[in-house]
Amino acid sequence: MQDEINDLRKRINGLDEQILRSLNERAELAMRIGRAKAKTGAEVYDPARERAVLERMDTLNPGPLDKGAVEEVFAGIITACRELQMR
Amino acid sequence: MQDEINDLRKRINGLDEQILRSLNERAELAMRIGRAKAKTGAEVYDPARERAVLERMDTLNPGPLDKGAVEEVFAGIITACRELQMR
Repeated sequence: MQDEINDLRKRINGLDEQILRSLNERAELAMRIGRAKAKTGAEVYDPARERAVLERMDTLNPGPLDKGAVEEVFAGIITACRELQMR
Repeated sequence: MQDEINDLRKRINGLDEQILRSLNERAELAMRIGRAKAKTGAEVYDPARERAVLERMDTLNPGPLDKGAVEEVFAGIITACRELQMR
């Protein structure tokens, strides 16, 4: 049993590394959007775009995570990127 | 400016799709761990393992997201997976 769990955890660690990399790439792109907006005085906070991102994730979600869980995780991701844009 | 923002958003959408896929694969593996634990009556909630995942992400984090942001996002991911294991 412990061998099976250790193997599954190794695979989870690999996925976590991928997620961490993608998250930081996303943050980098969000910062570039922030800089592009700053040039024209556009608002960083764009609730319509944030809502569209969440709806898109709900639509594309293959499961097993449910809509509520996916929304919570992506709301956290969006907030983290927005805070970086506002610095 | 709008063209640049639209291009950056398309790239963010692509990253979000990757993250969504990895999240659900992670959830699938977590469910398998839950089933393996259930066979032996082991507890699903394992705070030492959860802490180790967060510390690992802090160590591997390349930025620009800071430690606090990475911890918040991964705490959300861990909670979503744990809730699925407990169903």
